[in-house]
Amino acid sequence: MITLIIAEAALELVPEEIVWHSAVRTHSRRHGKEPRSMLLDRSYHHRAMLNLRDAHKRGRPDIVHFSLLEATSIPLYYNHMLSIYVHTMADKVISIGGGVRLPKNYNRFVGLVEDLFSKGKIESKDGKYTLLEIEDMGFNTLIDRIRPSTVIGLSRLGEMKSAEYVASTVKGVVGTGISGISTVDDVGGGACIVVGGFPKGTFSPAIRSRFDHTIAISRYSLEAHVVVARVLYEVEKTLLSIC
Amino acid sequence: MITLIIAEAALELVPEEIVWHSAVRTHSRRHGKEPRSMLLDRSYHHRAMLNLRDAHKRGRPDIVHFSLLEATSIPLYYNHMLSIYVHTMADKVISIGGGVRLPKNYNRFVGLVEDLFSKGKIESKDGKYTLLEIEDMGFNTLIDRIRPSTVIGLSRLGEMKSAEYVASTVKGVVGTGISGISTVDDVGGGACIVVGGFPKGTFSPAIRSRFDHTIAISRYSLEAHVVVARVLYEVEKTLLSIC
Repeated sequence: MITLIIAEAALELVPEEIVWHSAVRTHSRRHGKEPRSMLLDRSYHHRAMLNLRDAHKRGRPDIVHFSLLEATSIPLYYNHMLSIYVHTMADKVISIGGGVRLPKNYNRFVGLVEDLFSKGKIESKDGKYTLLEIEDMGFNTLIDRIRPSTVIGLSRLGEMKSAEYVASTVKGVVGTGISGISTVDDVGGGACIVVGGFPKGTFSPAIRSRFDHTIAISRYSLEAHVVVARVLYEVEKTLLSIC
Repeated sequence: MITLIIAEAALELVPEEIVWHSAVRTHSRRHGKEPRSMLLDRSYHHRAMLNLRDAHKRGRPDIVHFSLLEATSIPLYYNHMLSIYVHTMADKVISIGGGVRLPKNYNRFVGLVEDLFSKGKIESKDGKYTLLEIEDMGFNTLIDRIRPSTVIGLSRLGEMKSAEYVASTVKGVVGTGISGISTVDDVGGGACIVVGGFPKGTFSPAIRSRFDHTIAISRYSLEAHVVVARVLYEVEKTLLSIC
């Protein structure tokens, strides 16, 4: 099993300390939502975010949206060979179920995630499957629960290696006898690929310390969705004979 | 030079025949925009679109947004080796300039494209560069102006070949002596890759007839942004030694 974690993702509700700000209140009125139930979004709350701690790493739900669309629109995911988690800056973990089709429209995605933050869980219409679930959980706890054989962090500051190299490392760990999708309660093993879900900066030291390999797949600072697309595509090529 | 065309894209303003519909008028009021100046978007205008001709291929600006973000966030584009055009269902062509950074936020992208439809051109703040330009132009005219050596259509109905095969075909045509970005007025040559910008169905026969190769890179029906990401990544690998 392969696991993808979008880590330290810039995804959170509008924090209490800026709900009074005019940029937040205007956006809140326009959408008829309570400020505290809305996702923080730099596109609308830029002025309100100026004094937030670590502001440069916050308020970008679009990064999670694009990255998840990349990861859930590919044969590797269709074939139940990929588990996906989003770990946020504020230490929450969103588990993405198998076979989930996320909204392609950004505003609907934002509405869905706001709903998830409020309810803790999104189920399929028939109530049989959990599509998304959010829990308070740090990155360390998530890794301890997944228990991967190896953790590969993709970072501009890592060793320069190709995405094919990442895929060959994944294949070395995973082997070829893959079946079924794992959950955090599974028996562990496999490779875990970690991509940053923030717009600028690098992984915090606590996250980096869990990487067995830290790899830069480009000399350019690539967007998270591009890294996700390229690495998962190379992994797919090594593991699926017909994509 | 490599050219990417997102063809028959589901991108247009709300057509006259449905401006009266309540779904359109509600959306128009909420955003304080004239119905005829808004992009048709199935997320909001679904009910109004029920009786539109070819409705299944229309009203999906998100497909163009994702595909363009894939194409403009990669070293191939940063290195001025990729020209990008969007050809729409209603025979308009949008030329994307070199070094353009499109809005990642969907609503800002929609606003920008609405502005483009209204003004015909979006220039850089200093007025020196044309970032986006829209013209009335059919697919045939666009191909005649680009004059590529070969046109490769990516289609589920094509011959099953890998994305690497597409890249090797592109390389065979392009060679390795690439420099500078071309425009539609350039001397021609090079390879042109065509990806459908519609959610369902296949290319119309008039478009298909211009393909020298029609290739399916997967046995799955992949989203346009996944096809763009995979094919351009393989092309980049064959043409750029360090990505």
